[in-house]
Amino acid sequence: MTSPCLNVGLIGLGTVGGGVARILTEHAERITRRAGRQIAIRKVAVRDLSKTRVVNLPDGTLTTSIDDVINDPEIEVVLQLMGGISPARETMQKLLQAGKHVVTANKALLCEHGSELFQLATEHDCCIAYEAAVAGGIPIISVINQSMAANQITSIEAILNGTSNFILTEMLARNSSYETILSLAQERGYAEADPTMDIDGTDAAQKLVLLTQLAFGTKVRLDDFPRQGITTLELSDLKYADELGYTVKLLAVTRLIARRLELHVQPTLVRHERALAQIHGPYNMIALVGDAVGTTHYSGQGAGQMPTASAVVADLIDVAVGRAQLTFRQLPLGSRATALPVVPPEDTIQRYYLRFNALDRPHVFADITDILGRHGISLASVIQHEAPELDDDATDRELVVPIVVMTHRTTEGRIRAAEAELHNLRSLRPPVVRMSISDA
Amino acid sequence: MTSPCLNVGLIGLGTVGGGVARILTEHAERITRRAGRQIAIRKVAVRDLSKTRVVNLPDGTLTTSIDDVINDPEIEVVLQLMGGISPARETMQKLLQAGKHVVTANKALLCEHGSELFQLATEHDCCIAYEAAVAGGIPIISVINQSMAANQITSIEAILNGTSNFILTEMLARNSSYETILSLAQERGYAEADPTMDIDGTDAAQKLVLLTQLAFGTKVRLDDFPRQGITTLELSDLKYADELGYTVKLLAVTRLIARRLELHVQPTLVRHERALAQIHGPYNMIALVGDAVGTTHYSGQGAGQMPTASAVVADLIDVAVGRAQLTFRQLPLGSRATALPVVPPEDTIQRYYLRFNALDRPHVFADITDILGRHGISLASVIQHEAPELDDDATDRELVVPIVVMTHRTTEGRIRAAEAELHNLRSLRPPVVRMSISDA
Repeated sequence: MTSPCLNVGLIGLGTVGGGVARILTEHAERITRRAGRQIAIRKVAVRDLSKTRVVNLPDGTLTTSIDDVINDPEIEVVLQLMGGISPARETMQKLLQAGKHVVTANKALLCEHGSELFQLATEHDCCIAYEAAVAGGIPIISVINQSMAANQITSIEAILNGTSNFILTEMLARNSSYETILSLAQERGYAEADPTMDIDGTDAAQKLVLLTQLAFGTKVRLDDFPRQGITTLELSDLKYADELGYTVKLLAVTRLIARRLELHVQPTLVRHERALAQIHGPYNMIALVGDAVGTTHYSGQGAGQMPTASAVVADLIDVAVGRAQLTFRQLPLGSRATALPVVPPEDTIQRYYLRFNALDRPHVFADITDILGRHGISLASVIQHEAPELDDDATDRELVVPIVVMTHRTTEGRIRAAEAELHNLRSLRPPVVRMSISDA
Repeated sequence: MTSPCLNVGLIGLGTVGGGVARILTEHAERITRRAGRQIAIRKVAVRDLSKTRVVNLPDGTLTTSIDDVINDPEIEVVLQLMGGISPARETMQKLLQAGKHVVTANKALLCEHGSELFQLATEHDCCIAYEAAVAGGIPIISVINQSMAANQITSIEAILNGTSNFILTEMLARNSSYETILSLAQERGYAEADPTMDIDGTDAAQKLVLLTQLAFGTKVRLDDFPRQGITTLELSDLKYADELGYTVKLLAVTRLIARRLELHVQPTLVRHERALAQIHGPYNMIALVGDAVGTTHYSGQGAGQMPTASAVVADLIDVAVGRAQLTFRQLPLGSRATALPVVPPEDTIQRYYLRFNALDRPHVFADITDILGRHGISLASVIQHEAPELDDDATDRELVVPIVVMTHRTTEGRIRAAEAELHNLRSLRPPVVRMSISDA
């Protein structure tokens, strides 16, 4: 036993912080046994002292001053559970400068400023542990860092955002519109009041950036790869995909192809029979391929109070035991030597699903296929169901007919160029809906 | 960096040993980077020096004497890849007494003599790492030891034997008998020449023993819980299960119920829609439930050269980095304090599937239900399809009609007692086929 007691500071006692405090206080005996020493919550920085807390902490533990945590020389580890970039970034810098190990769930901060913070941690002989930043209760960070260490990872395909997965699942299950299910997700606590980052693919992309850096030693920025959310999808798209044998998932993908990395976050058609297609509601899954191990799958709750708290406390125990410090030293965070280059977004190659809202006029189908053909995009299949007969009282309206096309493999650049032309076609009503198709 | 080079000994250069040697020699740069130092294969003990090897090792590396490995003072870690109990046990003892860390895939040895060996390792300040002993490429040992450390595990349900899973999958897929598919599995290398341990549930039970000890701190013996293989199953049983909405899996289960552990390894009816039902062929899956994290799933290849080698090398890197030693100290291997008691086999409670081969005589169904009823076993459902009309030339044979019964929850003891009586029924032809039904 290294020490009689490990003193811990918490910054933030919200959803996750509250969960962490519950585990540490309600299961202290279990945690002590596994950490090899007692873990004591010494200071907790909160915004509002008067708020009622679910956890009983000794008098004087709560403070409104983050500096009380930073400047406490007895505190060795800080659970930094503040979201957003600022002041989380400055707080993290001060904590590391004060020589404290940091456990965090802040993916946005690590995605944006990870390199700088990892560097700072190394300089001050501290570690940053962030299992909770990606996929909540699924231990994908330690799987990549430790368990797959013998492998060259060759592919990551993942459902990393529970909110959008819940929406996609329930739209089809309840035969409901995107808007209806988004409201339901908000009622159930699966979507925040402002769900932008979840549904536009940013949250999944930030997590993919962290996984990609660990798996391939490559620092990627959000702008380095195509990113598309689920906001433009309609129920009909999920139904067409279903008819074609696919389930639609917001998939975050990094693939190693010819010593370069292809990344994207896009709504993707996944074959019904694949494990990824069978992850429903707010769950996450990561399909990881390694050159020795083959394909492995990991799934569980990707968010929520207790799954995330479980990951934070696992990291804390790792620090207490001393493992986290050893692991941090071996992470491929700084080295440029082994970094693999990233394929430019316009050169990434995929198959695509496209849905057009065509006015029921002569030659519209020829117009579409002409534009696609001129951009070198060839078609694998087409769905156009017979248009319904118009009611008498609807004859003054123009009938919009959906046309669904599946392309052969082509580049993102060609698709974008074709889309730009398609947007100018008078015989189409916007939007052109685009999804990726997983070949696997 | 702790040392310029970590010297490693190998005992066994068969399937797994060969895979390990390939990774260490073909990907030396990668392994050095992740281990923080070079890893050198210094000695390899083999049975036959003249055998052709797929890996090129420096002259003088191979030896037929295990003592050469044990007595080499430069060797810090030994990859002990010898199967069976003896001389593996004595070799392991000598290695630990010589102060060497041991990485092994030998589940049978650890299941049988783990306590004694773990104790010996502790006395000599060494560690035993055995990720490869359970579920091959799936890192379930480190998930339980590290990633789930904040949790009380409440349930393990797992497909841990690829051979039997391959057989069950292919029997139904190819509409073939057990015997036909067993031969196919042997041709494909998914089953050994003597597949007894795989198909009778012993292999899965040994792995369950190791997982249970880690997850619950409880030392269990093979005889402490019901164990049943897949040898008595017929294709018709898989079809009846399918008709009822279930897939048959050889499931290894430990559940924490009212502060006691219920364990069993049995062919089990798993609802089609569950993730465990969708693991096909030689794959493994573990469904792990923790009180904080909820349900998580892990799947991948449970055996085979490179998946197992991947796990061995991950352990080796863990030793090189120093993590394995820290983890080993915290394992709940010796302490009786926290060990949970195991429910006696006859008191375990489940639902059961029973198939009887009934002679087409009056009162046979009444006889069966009378026996079950007298043992307090009540029926949830019954399938008896209409018997085919006899051909004229078959009138001298007695028609055997299958009757399938699904029971409500009852104890293993009651089922065993009822079975004993049922075996005496003249109107039944043996065997009575029994499977467990998973309630989840």
